[in-house]
Amino acid sequence: MSENYKAAGYGSFDIEFGQQAAILVVDFQLAFTDTAFPMGDLPLVDKAVDQTSKLLDVARSAGVPVASCYTAYNSPKDMPLWKVAAVREEFFYGHPCTEIDPRVHDAEHDFVFCKNAPSIFFNTPLTTFLIKHRVDTVIVTGCVTSGCIRASVIDAFSHGYRVFVPEDCVGDVDERPHHDNLRDMARRYAEITDAAAMIRRLGGVEAGARAARG
Amino acid sequence: MSENYKAAGYGSFDIEFGQQAAILVVDFQLAFTDTAFPMGDLPLVDKAVDQTSKLLDVARSAGVPVASCYTAYNSPKDMPLWKVAAVREEFFYGHPCTEIDPRVHDAEHDFVFCKNAPSIFFNTPLTTFLIKHRVDTVIVTGCVTSGCIRASVIDAFSHGYRVFVPEDCVGDVDERPHHDNLRDMARRYAEITDAAAMIRRLGGVEAGARAARG
Amino acid sequence: MSENYKAAGYGSFDIEFGQQAAILVVDFQLAFTDTAFPMGDLPLVDKAVDQTSKLLDVARSAGVPVASCYTAYNSPKDMPLWKVAAVREEFFYGHPCTEIDPRVHDAEHDFVFCKNAPSIFFNTPLTTFLIKHRVDTVIVTGCVTSGCIRASVIDAFSHGYRVFVPEDCVGDVDERPHHDNLRDMARRYAEITDAAAMIRRLGGVEAGARAARG
Amino acid sequence: MSENYKAAGYGSFDIEFGQQAAILVVDFQLAFTDTAFPMGDLPLVDKAVDQTSKLLDVARSAGVPVASCYTAYNSPKDMPLWKVAAVREEFFYGHPCTEIDPRVHDAEHDFVFCKNAPSIFFNTPLTTFLIKHRVDTVIVTGCVTSGCIRASVIDAFSHGYRVFVPEDCVGDVDERPHHDNLRDMARRYAEITDAAAMIRRLGGVEAGARAARG
Repeated sequence: MSENYKAAGYGSFDIEFGQQAAILVVDFQLAFTDTAFPMGDLPLVDKAVDQTSKLLDVARSAGVPVASCYTAYNSPKDMPLWKVAAVREEFFYGHPCTEIDPRVHDAEHDFVFCKNAPSIFFNTPLTTFLIKHRVDTVIVTGCVTSGCIRASVIDAFSHGYRVFVPEDCVGDVDERPHHDNLRDMARRYAEITDAAAMIRRLGGVEAGARAARG
Repeated sequence: MSENYKAAGYGSFDIEFGQQAAILVVDFQLAFTDTAFPMGDLPLVDKAVDQTSKLLDVARSAGVPVASCYTAYNSPKDMPLWKVAAVREEFFYGHPCTEIDPRVHDAEHDFVFCKNAPSIFFNTPLTTFLIKHRVDTVIVTGCVTSGCIRASVIDAFSHGYRVFVPEDCVGDVDERPHHDNLRDMARRYAEITDAAAMIRRLGGVEAGARAARG
Repeated sequence: MSENYKAAGYGSFDIEFGQQAAILVVDFQLAFTDTAFPMGDLPLVDKAVDQTSKLLDVARSAGVPVASCYTAYNSPKDMPLWKVAAVREEFFYGHPCTEIDPRVHDAEHDFVFCKNAPSIFFNTPLTTFLIKHRVDTVIVTGCVTSGCIRASVIDAFSHGYRVFVPEDCVGDVDERPHHDNLRDMARRYAEITDAAAMIRRLGGVEAGARAARG
Repeated sequence: MSENYKAAGYGSFDIEFGQQAAILVVDFQLAFTDTAFPMGDLPLVDKAVDQTSKLLDVARSAGVPVASCYTAYNSPKDMPLWKVAAVREEFFYGHPCTEIDPRVHDAEHDFVFCKNAPSIFFNTPLTTFLIKHRVDTVIVTGCVTSGCIRASVIDAFSHGYRVFVPEDCVGDVDERPHHDNLRDMARRYAEITDAAAMIRRLGGVEAGARAARG
C-alpha cells in the first residue's frame, strides 16, 4: 500500500472468516467464457472459471450455499446506459450468451438468478437467500474484476458481510485493472485470498492442495 | 483505452446529457477536508472541494437540485467492516468529522443526509428525492474517487441515470487510484468531464470560463 | 374516514396527477386468473383483469410505459416464508402458473419481469425502467388488493411517486379485505380512482366512457 | 379466516421461531405517544408502548439486538407525498416529535436511526445491522398497525425473516384497521402473538407472566 494510504489509516484491520459462508458466482455466463461471443476470449477469466469450479466442488460437498447470477434484460428500455457494445446488443432474456458456463453450473444445488446491473446484489433476490441461510461471510468469484466483481464486493461489504475475494477465481480483460481493483478493495472492504486457502477453510484439505498447484 | 478493452467493445457509446440534472456531493465532510482529522490532509480532495463549490454556485442559481451526504453510524454495531481506521473510530452521529465542509454546504438549498456505506445511494433516501424532481442526469462530485465516488457512480448507473463525473470535482488520497478509477468508470458507466464543462451546461457561461482557469 | 382518523389529520391532502405516468400490472399471472390453478377462481380478480385490459389498450396507444410482473422463485431456498400453499408449491421459474394472463400481456410493448416478494418494487429492476422514462406517476393495477397491491402501493409511495389505484383494476379473494385495504391506502399514500377516470386522463375519452359502463 | 381465503390455501403454514431474534421498534416517537402533538393521543398506541417496554427489558437483558426507528425528513423536498398533515408539517430532522418515547428508549443498547418511509427497512441501514448479528427472526413492535407496522412486516417477510407480531405491542388510531391488518398479515407473512409469549420465548418466564396480566 502507498505511504499516503497507509498514513491515512487504510488497510488497518483484518476481516475474520465468520460462522456461515456462501459462494457468490458473478456472471460466469457464456458471454464472457465462450469464444463464440464477442467478449468471450478472456484468458484471465477462463482460468478463473477453472479455479472457481474446484472451489465450488468443495463448497457443494460441504453444503455451503452457492448463488450464481447472469446479467440479462427484457429490452433496451429496462437497461442502464451501458457503454459496452455486447451488453447493449446481446444481453437479453433467453439469449445463449446469458447461460451459465457448464464448468460452474449446478442447477440442483445453486440458486441461479438474473441480475440487471453490475452488482450481484443490486435489486436482486440475493439477500433473501443469504438471510434465510444466516450467511455472514461471502466468497466472491466471477468476472470481470474491474466491473461486476468490484460492484458486487462493494455491495457485499455495505450489507455487512465479511468479504473474501480469491484472486485466482476472478478475472479481467487485462492484468492491470484486475490488480488495481484488488488493491482498492483490499484497502477498504475485503480480504484478498486464493482458491486454495478458501478450499482449506471450507474443509477440503486435499482439494486445497490441488488448487494451490493451479 | 487498452487494445483488449477496445476489442471487447468497451467505451463504445457516449452518454448524452438528459433533461433534468442533479448534483450529488459525496462525503465532503470535515473528516476528508480538514487537517484537524487523521484523513483530512488530502490535496487532491481539497482542490476538488474548491472546484465543486464553483459548480454548486451555478447549480443553485439555476435551481438544479443538490444532494449532499456524509457518512456516519450510530455505533460499531451498525457499521460495515471498514478496514479504514478513522471510519471505525470517529464516523459516528454528531461527531465533528461528519460535518459538511462549509465551502460546499448550503442548508437552505441542498438535501443533506447521512449515509452508511460507500455509495450515496445505498439504503439512503436519495432516489425518493431524485424521483420527485424527475432527475435523469446526475453529476457526481466528492471523495474519494477510488472509494465512495466509484461506489456512487456504479449505483447511479445501475438506477438508470445518465452519469457525469467532473474529474476536478472528485479527489483521492493518491493520483494513481484516482486515474485508475476514472478509467474503469469511463469504459462502462459514465462520461468523465470537468467542472467548466458542467457549469457551461448548466447555463453559467462566465462561471464556466472561470472554472476552466482553475 | 372515521372521526379518529380525520381528527388525527389523515387524508388531508390530494395527490395530483404528474407529468409522466406509467402503468404497473402486478401478478396478473395464471395462478390468479385461470381456474386450472388452485387460487385461480377469483371473480373480483377476473373483473379487474378485464378492466385493466381496457386501460392498457389506451395506455399503449398513448405510449405510456407499462411494467408487468409475475412472482416466481428458483427453489424454496430463495423464497420468503409464504403462508400461502400455492405459492410455496407452484410459483417456480417456468411453471405455467407464472405466465401473464393473455388479456393483459403484450410482449412487444411492456416491460415484463419476475419479482420475488409481494411488492413489484422489492429487489426488482422496476425503478431503473421508471427512472429512464422520467416517470413521476404510477397507476397500480393487479392482484390481490390486500396482498401484493398493498405492498406495491406502499413502495411506490415510498419511492416518491404519485400513486393512483383504479379500484376496478385491482381484485381480491373477498370483498372485505379489498375495501379495507383501499381505505388504509387512501388515508395515507394514494388516490383511489377507477379505470374510466384513468383512461380519460391518458387521453382516451371514448374508451373512458366505455370503461365507465363496465 | 374466511372460507374463500381458506379454500385458496392462505394461512396454511406456521412460521417457527428461528435461532437469532431481534426486536424492531417502529416509530414509537413522541408524535404518536405524547399528547402535546396532534397525533399523540392514541390509547391503543399508548398501551402498546407499555407492553413493548416490558418486552424490551427482557430482550436487552438477554442480549437480543434491538433496532428502533423514527420518521423524519430534511425538508418537504425529500418527503414522499404523505396525505397525513402532521407528517407533512412536523416530521423534520431535530423536531421534538421525532424523539423516541423515553419508555422504550435505550441509547446504550439499541440501534436508533431515522427512516423516511413507512417501512423500517425501506432505504435504511437496518439490514446491515441484522446481517451482522445473523438475525433470522424479527419481532415487530410499534405504530401504527395499519401504516408503518404493515409496511415493516411486509418488508421483513420479503427479506426472508421469520416475522412475529405481538398484537399488544402494536397500536392503531382505531380498533378496526388494527384487526384488519393483523388478519391480512396472519394469512400471508407473519405469526400474530403477544408480548407474554415473546417474553417467555426470550427466556424471561416471570416477566412473561407479568406481561400476560397486562
